[in-house]
Amino acid sequence: MTDDKHYMKLAIENAKAMKGQTDPNPLVGAVIVNHNRIVGVGSHLKAGEPHAEIHALQMAGENAKGATIYVTLEPCSHQGRTGPCALALVEAGVRRVVIATLDPNPLVAGNGVKILEDAGIEVEVGVLEDESISMNEVFNKFITHKQPFITMKAASTLDGKVATKTNHSKWITSEAAREDVHHLRNEHAAILVGIQTIIHDDPALTTRIPNGRNPIRIVLDSSLRIPLDAQIIQDKRAPTMIFTKEEVDQKKKDKLESVGVEIINTSGKEQTDIQDVVNHLGNQQISSLLLEGGGNIHASFLAAGLVDKVVLYMAPKLSGGKNAPTFFEGAGIEQMDDSIDLLNLKIDQIGPDFRFIGYPIFKEIND
Amino acid sequence: MTDDKHYMKLAIENAKAMKGQTDPNPLVGAVIVNHNRIVGVGSHLKAGEPHAEIHALQMAGENAKGATIYVTLEPCSHQGRTGPCALALVEAGVRRVVIATLDPNPLVAGNGVKILEDAGIEVEVGVLEDESISMNEVFNKFITHKQPFITMKAASTLDGKVATKTNHSKWITSEAAREDVHHLRNEHAAILVGIQTIIHDDPALTTRIPNGRNPIRIVLDSSLRIPLDAQIIQDKRAPTMIFTKEEVDQKKKDKLESVGVEIINTSGKEQTDIQDVVNHLGNQQISSLLLEGGGNIHASFLAAGLVDKVVLYMAPKLSGGKNAPTFFEGAGIEQMDDSIDLLNLKIDQIGPDFRFIGYPIFKEIND
Repeated sequence: MTDDKHYMKLAIENAKAMKGQTDPNPLVGAVIVNHNRIVGVGSHLKAGEPHAEIHALQMAGENAKGATIYVTLEPCSHQGRTGPCALALVEAGVRRVVIATLDPNPLVAGNGVKILEDAGIEVEVGVLEDESISMNEVFNKFITHKQPFITMKAASTLDGKVATKTNHSKWITSEAAREDVHHLRNEHAAILVGIQTIIHDDPALTTRIPNGRNPIRIVLDSSLRIPLDAQIIQDKRAPTMIFTKEEVDQKKKDKLESVGVEIINTSGKEQTDIQDVVNHLGNQQISSLLLEGGGNIHASFLAAGLVDKVVLYMAPKLSGGKNAPTFFEGAGIEQMDDSIDLLNLKIDQIGPDFRFIGYPIFKEIND
Repeated sequence: MTDDKHYMKLAIENAKAMKGQTDPNPLVGAVIVNHNRIVGVGSHLKAGEPHAEIHALQMAGENAKGATIYVTLEPCSHQGRTGPCALALVEAGVRRVVIATLDPNPLVAGNGVKILEDAGIEVEVGVLEDESISMNEVFNKFITHKQPFITMKAASTLDGKVATKTNHSKWITSEAAREDVHHLRNEHAAILVGIQTIIHDDPALTTRIPNGRNPIRIVLDSSLRIPLDAQIIQDKRAPTMIFTKEEVDQKKKDKLESVGVEIINTSGKEQTDIQDVVNHLGNQQISSLLLEGGGNIHASFLAAGLVDKVVLYMAPKLSGGKNAPTFFEGAGIEQMDDSIDLLNLKIDQIGPDFRFIGYPIFKEIND
């Protein structure tokens, strides 16, 4: 590993340490090095507080002069609460700035670099770029698309089944894998399921880990079939939003609203329009959404090219059954070539189960 | 690693090197050590030729006296072409015999050890036992059950689909994974598919690697629907056997037999009886069988508790579809607890694909 990568790695570690506390801002870390000695380290801690570079400059003091700073994101060029960071670096007299990745907003990208270069500072961009982008995948999507980053999660047997033919599904995966799902919930602003899941399982959709934050609970329920005694209607442990088709039973709607449930009618004539759902969540500043099925919901989002990331838990068992549901149902494709490839697919083990994490590549859908 | 494990490991490596050439005999290796020096190494090379111990003793000569011999399988106690190996070890004057595993035939197990112990030789059993058993899994099954060791193989997308809703399946996995399947075919005495697979794909079921041995091709075709122009009927590249239900169209049967296809009627009234199939193969000295689906064939064998090993290739893609076939269909279970667990499930990567290898545990089926 070169020195540049070594110090950038430290900056990334410092950025990642703040995971979950910078929202809606990105994770950013900075390290200042002068004559092979680390003289300053900083992270962005919380929205409204100084950026990572400012913390690092404060620690470095006079040692910033002539130094190299490693920063995981392009220093900002706009007048925020702490002034443009690029200008602060110029004023501190740093000699060289190494940046992992440019500002994700293409309208702003490069402006920070320009300020630095105009001041005669040597700038290098792209050191450990993939790591930096990946640690802010949710932020990057939201800032550029104004839509939530959508993660599809499923737990199945090794033959892809999410339940038996009688819809029995307790339990497929181990306690360790199920706890991992609660960490996923904790990291997401909202969680979405189909009405079938509510009717079959009546889940709480809460985060059951110490200090867990409950996501907003979202149900796609085109005809407002949700039972009034469902846990997510009654328990008040997190907000619940229901998306329906264009027209629904007004009385049922009134009843649900009277107990604090938000009902949003989409433009769909027969079904809930999922693009409307995603746009609405974006407008509500909901930056991340966890899809927890079932297989028809997953198929709708995948067919629309709306899934950014896939997390699959697979138990080391086979359950079978021609009519047992899988985690990806829907109409299905005709040619195997039209499958959705998963990029950067990684696998690891959680207890006895396998966890796959990958990024779907939608070929023509989004063109 | 202790010295015992170290030397046994070498004996196992020597045994494994002969994979594919000892049939119907097991793989066996032996190492003789005298005063921390290896004085003899041997493997069983071919049925009808000397056992591993005999080769190792010949190499050791006078140095066998007072030595320790490591042998992967209990030395034989019966009069074969080279005499009982246990007696040969006594005559050579070895001091200690370390054995990985006893003879798999419970009626014979322990007899070799008894000869050695009666002669005052120190005997230890169980060093690297699992490795030794696993390398002879086919032999062990066949020698104890007189039935073939059955490996179920499937290639699917990550959501368990083996084709699209229109039965299109070319190609799910990469060339590398498909080549691996040909190595599997090379290692098996017979390969079995359902008539649906023949009708949809018209496969050759041959081994397409250099010096590959073609397995005997077996089709379960209860009503003898097989097209006369199917590759496996016409190409003469390997024997083809068709198993049917009790009564079938005699004219069609005559036609198929006239081109050299063997037709076996089982006792099944509506369907081919798979237990009859397995028994027949055992009687024909077919020691290993590769199941290559489809999902209903796999379901029949799994439901009957007849699968010894599962090899799954999974491509990093999602294909979806409620009506797309999976590799494990059939009627299905009701409770998730009744799933079939896979023991010792291992995963590795073959090109871009994942390969799972595990051993199904049948809870009550076989009791």
